[in-house]
Amino acid sequence: MSPAPLDQPPSAEELGRLLAEAKSRYSAAEAAALAQGAAAAPPAEDAGAWIRLIAPNPTPELAAALNRLKQSAAAVIARGRAVPVAERLARLRAELGRRALAGFVVPRADEHQGEYVPLRAERLAWVSGFTGSAGLVIVLQDRAVIFVDGRYTVQVRAETDPALFEYRHLIEEPPPDWIAETLKPGDRLGYDPWLHTPDQVKALARGAEKAGAGLIACAPSPLDQVWGEQPPHPLAPVVPHPERHAGRASADKRREVGSAVAKAGADAAVLTQPDAIAWLLNIRGADVPHTPLPLSFAILEADGRAKLFIDPRKLAPETRAHLGNEVAIEAPDALGPALDALGAGGAKVLADPSSAAAWIFDRLAAAKAKILSADDPTLLIKACKNEVEVEGARAAHRRDGASLTRFLAWIAREAPKGGLDELSAAEKLYQFRRGNALFQDLSFGSISAAGPNGALPHYRSTPATNRKIEPGTLYLIDSGGQYLDATTDVTRTVAIGEPTAEMRDRFTRVLKGHIALALATFPAGTTGQQIDVIARLPLWQAGLDYDHGTGHGVGSFLSVHEGPQRISKAPNRIALKAGMIVSNEPGYYKPGAYGIRTENLVVVTKVVQPEGAERELLGFETLTLAPIDRTLIVREMLTAEERAWLDAYHARVRAELTPLVDAETAAWLAEVTRPI
Amino acid sequence: MSPAPLDQPPSAEELGRLLAEAKSRYSAAEAAALAQGAAAAPPAEDAGAWIRLIAPNPTPELAAALNRLKQSAAAVIARGRAVPVAERLARLRAELGRRALAGFVVPRADEHQGEYVPLRAERLAWVSGFTGSAGLVIVLQDRAVIFVDGRYTVQVRAETDPALFEYRHLIEEPPPDWIAETLKPGDRLGYDPWLHTPDQVKALARGAEKAGAGLIACAPSPLDQVWGEQPPHPLAPVVPHPERHAGRASADKRREVGSAVAKAGADAAVLTQPDAIAWLLNIRGADVPHTPLPLSFAILEADGRAKLFIDPRKLAPETRAHLGNEVAIEAPDALGPALDALGAGGAKVLADPSSAAAWIFDRLAAAKAKILSADDPTLLIKACKNEVEVEGARAAHRRDGASLTRFLAWIAREAPKGGLDELSAAEKLYQFRRGNALFQDLSFGSISAAGPNGALPHYRSTPATNRKIEPGTLYLIDSGGQYLDATTDVTRTVAIGEPTAEMRDRFTRVLKGHIALALATFPAGTTGQQIDVIARLPLWQAGLDYDHGTGHGVGSFLSVHEGPQRISKAPNRIALKAGMIVSNEPGYYKPGAYGIRTENLVVVTKVVQPEGAERELLGFETLTLAPIDRTLIVREMLTAEERAWLDAYHARVRAELTPLVDAETAAWLAEVTRPI
Repeated sequence: MSPAPLDQPPSAEELGRLLAEAKSRYSAAEAAALAQGAAAAPPAEDAGAWIRLIAPNPTPELAAALNRLKQSAAAVIARGRAVPVAERLARLRAELGRRALAGFVVPRADEHQGEYVPLRAERLAWVSGFTGSAGLVIVLQDRAVIFVDGRYTVQVRAETDPALFEYRHLIEEPPPDWIAETLKPGDRLGYDPWLHTPDQVKALARGAEKAGAGLIACAPSPLDQVWGEQPPHPLAPVVPHPERHAGRASADKRREVGSAVAKAGADAAVLTQPDAIAWLLNIRGADVPHTPLPLSFAILEADGRAKLFIDPRKLAPETRAHLGNEVAIEAPDALGPALDALGAGGAKVLADPSSAAAWIFDRLAAAKAKILSADDPTLLIKACKNEVEVEGARAAHRRDGASLTRFLAWIAREAPKGGLDELSAAEKLYQFRRGNALFQDLSFGSISAAGPNGALPHYRSTPATNRKIEPGTLYLIDSGGQYLDATTDVTRTVAIGEPTAEMRDRFTRVLKGHIALALATFPAGTTGQQIDVIARLPLWQAGLDYDHGTGHGVGSFLSVHEGPQRISKAPNRIALKAGMIVSNEPGYYKPGAYGIRTENLVVVTKVVQPEGAERELLGFETLTLAPIDRTLIVREMLTAEERAWLDAYHARVRAELTPLVDAETAAWLAEVTRPI
Repeated sequence: MSPAPLDQPPSAEELGRLLAEAKSRYSAAEAAALAQGAAAAPPAEDAGAWIRLIAPNPTPELAAALNRLKQSAAAVIARGRAVPVAERLARLRAELGRRALAGFVVPRADEHQGEYVPLRAERLAWVSGFTGSAGLVIVLQDRAVIFVDGRYTVQVRAETDPALFEYRHLIEEPPPDWIAETLKPGDRLGYDPWLHTPDQVKALARGAEKAGAGLIACAPSPLDQVWGEQPPHPLAPVVPHPERHAGRASADKRREVGSAVAKAGADAAVLTQPDAIAWLLNIRGADVPHTPLPLSFAILEADGRAKLFIDPRKLAPETRAHLGNEVAIEAPDALGPALDALGAGGAKVLADPSSAAAWIFDRLAAAKAKILSADDPTLLIKACKNEVEVEGARAAHRRDGASLTRFLAWIAREAPKGGLDELSAAEKLYQFRRGNALFQDLSFGSISAAGPNGALPHYRSTPATNRKIEPGTLYLIDSGGQYLDATTDVTRTVAIGEPTAEMRDRFTRVLKGHIALALATFPAGTTGQQIDVIARLPLWQAGLDYDHGTGHGVGSFLSVHEGPQRISKAPNRIALKAGMIVSNEPGYYKPGAYGIRTENLVVVTKVVQPEGAERELLGFETLTLAPIDRTLIVREMLTAEERAWLDAYHARVRAELTPLVDAETAAWLAEVTRPI
């Protein structure tokens, strides 16, 4: 019997035989469904992990057969992409017509309102072709509009057809205004209540109301109904996150958060954020790119017991035992009935209106549950990393810093020769990183930006935009890794060849802001909003600024953007607390010319109290370790205190990283970290 | 015929004769009513102004007779104060019983939600005895509770009877929580809809709802009904504010604000803030202490025409002509019918829910007007002072600074001899100030604080708290004046004798923060919330801080606390704009020992753009002129830039004030303003 060709999926008969041989509990049909789910998850570093969900010890033949099945499922998904957008719109409009809907709202969101979404939730891309990370489409019968923010005004025009879409600014021309101006009295505008928070629904409803129209919750979603090739829910393995990295047992966390729920006056909390659930239960998954999320929902009782609503096929064998008997595993479809039961039992239920889907609130209200709208009760506890997590972050940053330093040394050596470009550089850095112990994934798609591309703070290089890294320019690399013991995020900007005086002036001002924040001490109770300005003052003095926040929170082997704290002028009442990890990343961007950003992660720590201190002082310990390009620094612009910070930082970088890098890199590192 | 004794009011017959003789248009009874209104207004610098409302050219006999009438009315008001609080409560409770109310809410507010209120609105003091500037009482049949904030926890216990009142913290134990815990199902809790904003009513209603009780709008107020000796509405003269001080004609302002109302989508705006009306119509009054407010309401149409609802007896003869024929004068009682007419006409009406009384919204809603809840449309335009106002501020600050400098020289000379105390010092400063051209009033009751009293940021000296100004202590004086061309507010802290090293360290840190803010430049669009921290950093470095904002807005011959801008960590989205006047007043307070505050007023100005600047930069011009105590400065703690600021400031103070002070003060000024 000759083996099936590589791209040909195995027959059911053959697969059944291989599954039985490997003692799998799944039938051929069940395994095929699992392969489809695996194809709907992002590529994994450990490409065989999903196969072990089917058979812990697969034979090579079974593994090959399953991989062919997955390739076949991926091909189906890819074929769906070939359907022209005009046809997709036509399909959707026909369905809207059948439902007597004047239009339908398509946000860029999944059921968890996450930043990274699975392939299945790429509805905005399906309906429009636009692949950015934020936006919204409203499809009416005779017209359609796409809203994007300032980051995407160019990209949206490149990716979508102006014959099919009008363009609007998401922030300056908000969708509710367009709805108010465009809909006609009596129109029914549909939305998927799984994809909007209650606040978002309220804003859309106000717009519709002004037009005399109605906003209609649509379940099932008309879009999902006509998206023939919609990928299934991703099925990536969910594994225990061991206590040696998590620092605390799940039971302990569940008890503390349960007490907080009780203190808030509720009997239970609905958790809809996969990172909250991952943290609470000490589990990790791989359902979306770059963030180890197990897409799932949970209900936490005040006594610390929990129900986890998750596809049980995702659970690695050891995960059930790890979750223990205080965590009941239920199918995703059981969430609705569980909410109904809470209502029937007269329970008061906490849910977070800033992140939970309107569907959750609607269902709770229909079940006559008493709803307590409040912040997700895990938010603040999760944000304050425990000692094990902080120690893990220090260790991960040493490994990550060694990789980045090898990369920077390589760039310094190779770039002047010419021939490097953004994509090849990013790939090189990825290869350095993935050799690290405990490395799991990048924490986001690297921003590898040469010359003028650096002026776009959210730039992502593509084959179409890929630039050479050329002498006389700046190269900006913003990247990070997911390690079992931490999540990293670091930006360095380096001069390729000789920088201009202006570049050096700007770089030095950004650095002065970075150092001022790194050195800041502040009383307990201070918010990130209060101290954002500290990093901007040196730029302000020259009439310059940057149009993004100074820092975001970072998870512990979780989301690279994690709340509730941040350092930004945007309203935020969350005080910085010991253990919180945030980025320190001022920048400067000259459109069409270059961009500068210097980003380290820092952890909030208690500092030695000065004599006579009356307030408990906090400060920052810098976690990130990598040299800052001295050739871009104007020494005379630094104060003695700033020079002392820089020299001490570089001495620490050298001391900690030298043992971890090759001799050539070590020699380079010694050179670039000498005192300024 | 012998004259009536001084304290004896004139007979109606005698008064009638004197009025006729002076060609007054008022009868004796009408003049008596006016005298009662004058007695209900605060004392005026120009004690005869109210008499000229009755007769522009009064004979000395008429003036004396009217003054006796006013004294008699004041005596009635004073007698009301002698009624024991227990009896007042009993009267109120009896009325509540008649109305089947379980309780009644008494805030510290007038119908305009103002900071300074007329005698008539001192309902909180009437019902409790508490005279602080913020608080709230809830009277039930069997108990009563008084809520005050942290400033007043001592004072409230000194002024009220614990047998009659329970004490609660206004912020930490908010009244709605108490209502929720205390009321019984079915209880009816009354409130006066004139004394609360809609948002405040909502919060009270939520509390009542939790208890299963109801919140009942009471008109007329049961309290006003039983307060037998309640002073009448104040009747102080309303005079034109000339364009040479206002800088713009009222018609011009009305046109601009009217356009803003139209742009916001409304046909008219209800103005309930007397300072907004005073600014818009270029008028000033004297109905409350220290702020030249004409208590009144107004409706501004989108075309710039206005209706002013005001007691016409308050209008000085020239004021009617000044207001012109685009401003209709109507009686205060005509406001309700005017709102009804707006509703009947289908108008869309703008009202500010943060400052307008709930009564306004209720009436508009009952009249089926379309309500647009938005900021008072004068707020931002009024806040940005025009060139004439800024020039007026510069001039007023020279005169005011000269007075303060004479005072500081006097303190420096006299205090070491002993014998000075807080009250006599404040009186001395008042005497210096009132000699100034264009002086009208103090802009607030001076904070004259010796030694440990300085540690109370909101301290007001009374005969009971009055302290001697003694060697080895700090003396803090926070004071200001109302001039026709500006409102001033300044704080200086001076050492009496030899200060301690700690005092000098703290004073220098406060000064460093003050200078850092004075020197700050920031891009257009920056809010005061963003830059508040700049003044705190030198204190934070030592583990110190102050628990108040860094700066408040200031009016132009109007409120010494004027929004919408401020410099504070409290949420505030208002960008600082050229022409806005704010205070720069960091401080440090050591309870039981001393307090430090250095306050100058500054005006936001466009600064010279640095070469290469990409953002429009703003900064501050310091208006206040008075020496800063060099004996409290540790020179070595200042940077070269800080020393340069201080020396330049002192040189400017010396140059501008020397021509305005006596030789002795000039000699002292030369000494204390020499370079550090």
